[in-house]
Amino acid sequence: MPGNSFGQAFRVTTFGESHGPAIGCVVDGVPPGLDLAEADIQVFLDKRRPGQSRHTTQRQEADAVRILSGVFEGRTTGTPVALLIENTDQRSKDYGAIKDLFRPGHADYTYFKKYGIRDYRGGGRASARETAMRVAAGAIARKVLGTDVVIRGAMVQMGPHAIDRAAWNWDQVARNPFWCPDAQAASAWETYLDGIRKAGSSTGGVIEVVAEGVPAGLGEPLFDKLDAELAKALMGIPAAKGVEIGAGFAAAALEGPDNADEMRMDGDKVTFLANNAGGILGGISSGQDIVARLAIKPTSSILTPRRTVSVQGTDAEIVTKGRHDPCVAIRGVPVAEAMVACVLADHLLRFRGQCG
Amino acid sequence: MPGNSFGQAFRVTTFGESHGPAIGCVVDGVPPGLDLAEADIQVFLDKRRPGQSRHTTQRQEADAVRILSGVFEGRTTGTPVALLIENTDQRSKDYGAIKDLFRPGHADYTYFKKYGIRDYRGGGRASARETAMRVAAGAIARKVLGTDVVIRGAMVQMGPHAIDRAAWNWDQVARNPFWCPDAQAASAWETYLDGIRKAGSSTGGVIEVVAEGVPAGLGEPLFDKLDAELAKALMGIPAAKGVEIGAGFAAAALEGPDNADEMRMDGDKVTFLANNAGGILGGISSGQDIVARLAIKPTSSILTPRRTVSVQGTDAEIVTKGRHDPCVAIRGVPVAEAMVACVLADHLLRFRGQCG
Amino acid sequence: MPGNSFGQAFRVTTFGESHGPAIGCVVDGVPPGLDLAEADIQVFLDKRRPGQSRHTTQRQEADAVRILSGVFEGRTTGTPVALLIENTDQRSKDYGAIKDLFRPGHADYTYFKKYGIRDYRGGGRASARETAMRVAAGAIARKVLGTDVVIRGAMVQMGPHAIDRAAWNWDQVARNPFWCPDAQAASAWETYLDGIRKAGSSTGGVIEVVAEGVPAGLGEPLFDKLDAELAKALMGIPAAKGVEIGAGFAAAALEGPDNADEMRMDGDKVTFLANNAGGILGGISSGQDIVARLAIKPTSSILTPRRTVSVQGTDAEIVTKGRHDPCVAIRGVPVAEAMVACVLADHLLRFRGQCG
Amino acid sequence: MPGNSFGQAFRVTTFGESHGPAIGCVVDGVPPGLDLAEADIQVFLDKRRPGQSRHTTQRQEADAVRILSGVFEGRTTGTPVALLIENTDQRSKDYGAIKDLFRPGHADYTYFKKYGIRDYRGGGRASARETAMRVAAGAIARKVLGTDVVIRGAMVQMGPHAIDRAAWNWDQVARNPFWCPDAQAASAWETYLDGIRKAGSSTGGVIEVVAEGVPAGLGEPLFDKLDAELAKALMGIPAAKGVEIGAGFAAAALEGPDNADEMRMDGDKVTFLANNAGGILGGISSGQDIVARLAIKPTSSILTPRRTVSVQGTDAEIVTKGRHDPCVAIRGVPVAEAMVACVLADHLLRFRGQCG
Repeated sequence: MPGNSFGQAFRVTTFGESHGPAIGCVVDGVPPGLDLAEADIQVFLDKRRPGQSRHTTQRQEADAVRILSGVFEGRTTGTPVALLIENTDQRSKDYGAIKDLFRPGHADYTYFKKYGIRDYRGGGRASARETAMRVAAGAIARKVLGTDVVIRGAMVQMGPHAIDRAAWNWDQVARNPFWCPDAQAASAWETYLDGIRKAGSSTGGVIEVVAEGVPAGLGEPLFDKLDAELAKALMGIPAAKGVEIGAGFAAAALEGPDNADEMRMDGDKVTFLANNAGGILGGISSGQDIVARLAIKPTSSILTPRRTVSVQGTDAEIVTKGRHDPCVAIRGVPVAEAMVACVLADHLLRFRGQCG
Repeated sequence: MPGNSFGQAFRVTTFGESHGPAIGCVVDGVPPGLDLAEADIQVFLDKRRPGQSRHTTQRQEADAVRILSGVFEGRTTGTPVALLIENTDQRSKDYGAIKDLFRPGHADYTYFKKYGIRDYRGGGRASARETAMRVAAGAIARKVLGTDVVIRGAMVQMGPHAIDRAAWNWDQVARNPFWCPDAQAASAWETYLDGIRKAGSSTGGVIEVVAEGVPAGLGEPLFDKLDAELAKALMGIPAAKGVEIGAGFAAAALEGPDNADEMRMDGDKVTFLANNAGGILGGISSGQDIVARLAIKPTSSILTPRRTVSVQGTDAEIVTKGRHDPCVAIRGVPVAEAMVACVLADHLLRFRGQCG
Repeated sequence: MPGNSFGQAFRVTTFGESHGPAIGCVVDGVPPGLDLAEADIQVFLDKRRPGQSRHTTQRQEADAVRILSGVFEGRTTGTPVALLIENTDQRSKDYGAIKDLFRPGHADYTYFKKYGIRDYRGGGRASARETAMRVAAGAIARKVLGTDVVIRGAMVQMGPHAIDRAAWNWDQVARNPFWCPDAQAASAWETYLDGIRKAGSSTGGVIEVVAEGVPAGLGEPLFDKLDAELAKALMGIPAAKGVEIGAGFAAAALEGPDNADEMRMDGDKVTFLANNAGGILGGISSGQDIVARLAIKPTSSILTPRRTVSVQGTDAEIVTKGRHDPCVAIRGVPVAEAMVACVLADHLLRFRGQCG
Repeated sequence: MPGNSFGQAFRVTTFGESHGPAIGCVVDGVPPGLDLAEADIQVFLDKRRPGQSRHTTQRQEADAVRILSGVFEGRTTGTPVALLIENTDQRSKDYGAIKDLFRPGHADYTYFKKYGIRDYRGGGRASARETAMRVAAGAIARKVLGTDVVIRGAMVQMGPHAIDRAAWNWDQVARNPFWCPDAQAASAWETYLDGIRKAGSSTGGVIEVVAEGVPAGLGEPLFDKLDAELAKALMGIPAAKGVEIGAGFAAAALEGPDNADEMRMDGDKVTFLANNAGGILGGISSGQDIVARLAIKPTSSILTPRRTVSVQGTDAEIVTKGRHDPCVAIRGVPVAEAMVACVLADHLLRFRGQCG
């Protein structure tokens, strides 16, 4: 009934606040016998880590992960894998000023209404810091999926500026600070984001995740369809406001003959002549690439003064100082990849249980 | 691990195939003492029922629902409420021709790959017929929520034709066969859809659901956030390809100061000066209207011949005859409302458990 | 959060009241491709059916089960299997007299305290009638387990009269109305139970279930250990008051060297030299026979007048007329077998998911 | 699907191996606003801690618990409470000798068969060390239940030696190293257990837990009945072989009029004239004391040489050296109390969700 676990067969439970002693997670259901070391997880955490360019928050977190259980002599044992990251650079003093004010666009007000108490330091549980554990769990999920399944994310829009999809080149993604697959767009975004940052503003973005090599058959209709699960996983990422699969919202404007992906035999293999479905039909993977996109709103922490109210019920103005991302969508890319990995790993094991 | 249940505290389990003896559901967790009669459910089923205009499938189903348990002397007892609808107009003969062919855009291929066997009659479990039970469960969810919570859906786009939001009038919704809140758009859609139907084609659409009166505090971070749960609920509706909350994908193009909804006191009540958040902050309801949209792809059953493959692994052509909806989005409106109701009822009870 | 579902991978959800229109269940997670017909289920229901000898209630229920979904051309499809039994011999008039009185030993008082409303007809949801659906689900569970797994139950004690375990003969079980494996005990029980019945009294009993052929490896520590799950499954049977595994309570009186089952190689197979463990070590099946026992209290519906209180809060006397079992433990045997089958099927699929 | 979480509304997830870096747990669903400090938990851990008398293992663990999340300024925030205990006295060298042998009565063989790999150091995940986290979680559960609910455990039998129930005195429980409520029995046990220990043997025991002040209405039929949940919780404790509620197995030998607890009004309060039910009717608490007992087998680690087999499939002999409890039932008392507390807290929140 509480909501801090994700998945059923591959089950991730996370804990921790932005400025508490530590954040961590427990991954239950990991198949035994997989090679797993801290370095396998750290490599993904490092992708998400803040402070790597001027385009992300300057908070410095080593984010050094420690495996506390579930691994013996370098291999998973089938028992829960617990991961821990101690919080080291917390600067609680930055947040004292907003103790009594609800930051617009943040979860301050709703946590207060829900629980009647909130850890206001750095957003507490609602801080984007928690996504580190999603990324860590995603690294284990990738182990479960094996190397045939390749999950990659990219930013396809920053603010109003979309990439040219014809220029998509996966190799570009690691070559710019935005995970942008279009070199020219990346260059334009750099200028755009510098302006945003200097203005004390922020901007949104759209992330696309593609999973190749996913076997057909994953997804559990009627309610745990693969697309439904991906939608939940991605919409639950901080600042997400929209999710689409394959053609997505554009599909609404299509006519039937243009939308349904036709099929042909290629030797003894079934192939699809298009991928408007985004690799999912009837909530089950088809063997095509899984394609999902999510919209991320602009960071709510900005230097522009905004109208708000206080815990005491008075009108107020607020400016959110501190170290923030001008475009949180950037750091959302490895998080979105990780959530897709977790969903796929969970459904791979669920599939194997019933139909394996 | 299997996927035919939805919700945790208000838990809906459905069963049944399009052409089997019956479809039904079990709703567990219904609070005791609520007035509940078959008529309370039937009124919503009648909204969804096919064959009510030339714009929806001509399949004739009385869809008469029977309460089998959980109600005593007109009130819920707290035990599971089981609902049953016998299938009466099944015409299995319509489907024999496609026994060995996978219909493009349908779940035929993926069910076959997943289970190795499929009930091909009318789409079997993957038929939109199953949505009747979602609607029935939604009627019970509304009882749980009480009359202060008002959940209404509307179509806001058909094919490429969006409504004029300035012309939104809830009263119009019941006055046209499309649940369209814009009278002029409804009239244009009528012409457009007649053309689509006569051409043996189909089209998509966008549905918007608004829930008013939802108390602040619903939603269970980090993974069962209210928006994540709505995304799952709506993306799981047959033919859905995208979900957004509040400003949705448009939020990605905004800058911070334009996106975060400012707050002000109105007497001793907190008010928001805009609703880009769609009533949800940090995954928890804020007390504002909940606003969700979903994109529905065009019906995949069309009269245009399409390329496909056979169960036996040969290339083929297929034309999907039978009685189909030229725009399934229309009948999706009461289904989307019902899913939103189920999510809210579930989270109301979950909230009460931990924080009540 | 509500409690009418059992199992996670092989998931049974039941519904229905003793005197409502019907009882039923939905079994989700059934692997596809299993042969399944109504007759496969009916055979087990017939074992449990009342009115077969003078030793069980004379209520006459055909208990004819109908498969509503999940089976196509005689094989399971992987979608939910729904089962329905219409209630036909309800005689609600028998129960009007106790509408306002709480029967001692029954759930009348606690349902009233919990829900504030109760369907008093025949015990409503708390009637032993619900166990028919457990038996039905168990029949499907056996299909999942396959024919190598043999699950058999027997009564080993009636009232104070235990069997002679040295005289155990499985063949005897079907030859007396008590599922008693000791012919001599069965004969003594007959006399004893006639006396109980004629006195308007009732008696308890102990049931033993043995599952042979269960593969090693089933059970999910730390909390869903196989013995813990069996304990839950069996203690949840109406009137159960105790559960033990292997040596059970007797193990408490043993010393270490006498209790721990020693092991030896038999060719390349591991064998155990005793089975105090009841086939479960550390919560995981060892490949030995699973042995579980449960204690059933005497039927609470008796003709002896008992002191009680009324819904209105006054002292009263009550005599429970109607058609009752002098020893409900008898009809509990097929129910206990079924619950063991459900637990094993669930854990077989769970095992396969993580370790398969 | 994996099994390292317990409870649904009050949800405990544990992790950690006997000789890994740490053990810990995450408790999700804790209501906000409860006072909680490490000392509140430590007091219960200290009851369970080994090495406190010559009658328990001499392993020295400080078992100092650290709260990592979910508490702010001394109060719970409604977010997950994570607890951590670093392992400090691990002596892995003690266990190298049994790396390749399966200890009879232990989980060595079954973990190996299930996972194909096992952390053999100190029993790994199957070590009784994990019960520290059950005790820790139980301390939080008590906070949820409030001070009106009093949960106390006692040993009522050691080996073949039962207490005299007429001599029951709760005050005695803390005055002897056995949690024995009968002073005379405690004295006899001391002599008995010294003999057992010196012989390198071990013995079993029976624990009784009584929960007073539990409100009527807790428990979720049909499958999550309160007694079924208690049975699962208690049978899952290491070395448990039997569970009973109220009269338990003795109820099987009773006749109806002697078993069903009669009721009378005491002013406007309902009272029961006996408690054979152990406080639970129809799976729901009645407001009487909850009474549960569990049987614990003798410690399997003994100095007597036993026959076993090796991982390589050869016959062998084994003597289990190391630091062990001659009667693990003793340290099981606080563990059993904790599990009862967890079940009751979970069901209090579940009740509140549906019926609150």
